[in-house]
Amino acid sequence: MNWNQNMKPRSILEMNAVQDGDEASLLLQRRRRNMGAASILFYRRPLELRSARGVWLEATDGTRYLDFYNNVPSVGHCHPHVTEAVSRQIARLNIHSRYLSDGVEAYLERLRATFPAHLGNVVMTCSGSEANDLAMRIATRATGHGGFIVTEAAYHGNTTAVADVSPSSWKTPHVPSHVRLIPAPTRAAYGEDIAAGLAAAVAAAAAELDAAGHGLAALICNSVFSSDGVHPDPAGFLAPAVAAVHRAGGLYIADEVQPGFGRLGHGMWGFARHGVAPDMATMGKPMGNGFPMAGLAVGGALLDAFCGDTGYFNTFGGNPVAAAAGGAVLDVIESEKLIENARLRGAQLAEGLAGLAAEDGRIREIRAAGLFIGVEMASETGEAGELVIRLIDALRQQGVVIGSAGRYGESLKVRPPLCLSNSDVDLFLSALRKALKAVDRS
Amino acid sequence: MNWNQNMKPRSILEMNAVQDGDEASLLLQRRRRNMGAASILFYRRPLELRSARGVWLEATDGTRYLDFYNNVPSVGHCHPHVTEAVSRQIARLNIHSRYLSDGVEAYLERLRATFPAHLGNVVMTCSGSEANDLAMRIATRATGHGGFIVTEAAYHGNTTAVADVSPSSWKTPHVPSHVRLIPAPTRAAYGEDIAAGLAAAVAAAAAELDAAGHGLAALICNSVFSSDGVHPDPAGFLAPAVAAVHRAGGLYIADEVQPGFGRLGHGMWGFARHGVAPDMATMGKPMGNGFPMAGLAVGGALLDAFCGDTGYFNTFGGNPVAAAAGGAVLDVIESEKLIENARLRGAQLAEGLAGLAAEDGRIREIRAAGLFIGVEMASETGEAGELVIRLIDALRQQGVVIGSAGRYGESLKVRPPLCLSNSDVDLFLSALRKALKAVDRS
Repeated sequence: MNWNQNMKPRSILEMNAVQDGDEASLLLQRRRRNMGAASILFYRRPLELRSARGVWLEATDGTRYLDFYNNVPSVGHCHPHVTEAVSRQIARLNIHSRYLSDGVEAYLERLRATFPAHLGNVVMTCSGSEANDLAMRIATRATGHGGFIVTEAAYHGNTTAVADVSPSSWKTPHVPSHVRLIPAPTRAAYGEDIAAGLAAAVAAAAAELDAAGHGLAALICNSVFSSDGVHPDPAGFLAPAVAAVHRAGGLYIADEVQPGFGRLGHGMWGFARHGVAPDMATMGKPMGNGFPMAGLAVGGALLDAFCGDTGYFNTFGGNPVAAAAGGAVLDVIESEKLIENARLRGAQLAEGLAGLAAEDGRIREIRAAGLFIGVEMASETGEAGELVIRLIDALRQQGVVIGSAGRYGESLKVRPPLCLSNSDVDLFLSALRKALKAVDRS
Repeated sequence: MNWNQNMKPRSILEMNAVQDGDEASLLLQRRRRNMGAASILFYRRPLELRSARGVWLEATDGTRYLDFYNNVPSVGHCHPHVTEAVSRQIARLNIHSRYLSDGVEAYLERLRATFPAHLGNVVMTCSGSEANDLAMRIATRATGHGGFIVTEAAYHGNTTAVADVSPSSWKTPHVPSHVRLIPAPTRAAYGEDIAAGLAAAVAAAAAELDAAGHGLAALICNSVFSSDGVHPDPAGFLAPAVAAVHRAGGLYIADEVQPGFGRLGHGMWGFARHGVAPDMATMGKPMGNGFPMAGLAVGGALLDAFCGDTGYFNTFGGNPVAAAAGGAVLDVIESEKLIENARLRGAQLAEGLAGLAAEDGRIREIRAAGLFIGVEMASETGEAGELVIRLIDALRQQGVVIGSAGRYGESLKVRPPLCLSNSDVDLFLSALRKALKAVDRS
């Protein structure tokens, strides 16, 4: 795929991130000395935080912000059930998995039960990057092939192998020879029949990988195409693409790191909306509500084949504290009915956003699945990304933190903690209305 | 390098690990169902743990074990200063690093101050694997080359890229074309002048990588050559090898994931013993005393060049809870004088082991730096690995957990928490004497 010459693709890691703020606080200066070029911060004048609770962040200057960005503290910032579980376990036993511990197995059993039976084993890691990296190794071993297909603005993580399939982290286009990029599932790319178009693109990419001598190892998709701008509908569009992957001898890896754990408002996993059976599913971010943990669900035969060649061990992966955090997250999802809440609050948000769109032609499209929503801004001038950046700043003035998505940063990415309340939704809609007006005037 | 035909190299990940124990407890059966082929456990009858404190593990059957294996809980299992710091911070703020937080910068400043000034920036990750993977990406970008040199039984982690340079995790030899293996720094491999021999091996490997069209990106060494069997002496032997790397246009990555944070009993970092200046240093395991965290120290120019091409962001890396854990670990290292303790207790252990060696010819060599000690068993029959396995089992009967190291598992790996006491050392020596006798009789 060629990069569109008219619009500069935005690295998702740099969106809203400014290295040289006008008002460099002492803390910001220290940060730059510590982290150097690897410092990535949101906002020209970055937030200095001191605490967070539920859906609220509190800055050191006392300002409170409604959090519509952060998908890691999915059951709410610093949820006491989770922090108490971590505190209890970390004072008792925190050790690697080469000894047995009842709490770990109890958690793994609960986790496995959320997946289709054919994904019978779980491997625990520390990060979604590690989970995706392992899934790629397993796919390469199983197929004997080295080629991967991903979408044009995909993000799957930060290791050497995973960065190769994460075009949204590239500051300059440099598609590796074993990778093929396909357009995100949009009508703009594929016309009205997104399912058929996507499947055809996958088949063509697989054929190219074959012709180039790589062969197809796997298609890796974030199940809600988050960094591509959030593209959930029509549910089911992924099925023909997965069939095309299997016909070509490849595997389908469902990257559930962002959509997983109920965010889409129907069941635990995003792939289920499409009625597809992944060969592997990876998970991470909200898994421990901020405790560093992630994992992979995989069928026993794939895992056998891989482990026959190579040992895989992860020092921190699946330790008793991670199991305690993960178990507490599952508790809260159940006891607070957060999947249902994601569905109800997501619908309320989508309806409110539709109301705003009826008033304001700059809102081009609303794409929603539960509490994962992309709000695409009018982009005919090619400056939608700039408009979104200004909106993000204006929303900050209104006390809301939020981010962007899409290849050109053309969409607001709405992704609050799942414990969002009715009145939080109203607050957000009111803030967005004011921000749209402020941006209009500026 | 060819694999020695007379002895089967042992995958470090499989050492002492048995998939099919004779006495499969219910918990073990559950574990196998959950993790499948990825389950790696120590001992034929794995330990079932319920708690740990200081240098002691407690099993569910009430048995207590002196921990001579675990290097992650380096300041002592469940150290209250660390667990309280984590518990306090996780209830207050746990969020990624794209917002500012004073505690994070304060920790990074303390951490940076432990490194030579030329390693001016730190990048935080979740695991040592991620840190080594990032170091390899930076080295590849900086040199324009793709070749790496590591020792024959090196272990650097579990991502796609890092597994390629971790021969001790390969169950079958399959050296990637961009990797060259050199023998560990032993007199057996290089004769009396280990420094010159190692440097010559590095230069030859670099020339091979050049000739093969890869060029040299970096030499990666664990600063105490842990999985090669622990090879610290003579201090300084690494300097000519590093000079050879630099002459060949490559970088030197010091893998401090195991030797770092004072274990060697002199300063914080293992590379300092050799009087060398790494281009990057990676750290992990004991960094948070079990809280999942790791990182990379690197010069600003290398980081600038890398970040100019590619964004690097790590969701959980360097969050305020990791900073709290890491800071508390530094507190304890200082307040309990653990580096001095590693030196003193290490010397006491080495002296006691020398006494045992004088009584028992099966102890071939003791290689010690602080509380990182390799005890090589007589291996002329090629069965030292089997003897070590039997010793490990016999030590378990004596209430001590311990592991092995070396390409053939020919050495006991002595690596207890740094808070080891005088009497703990005596307990261990007494247990080892009994275990040697038990193995003699069996």
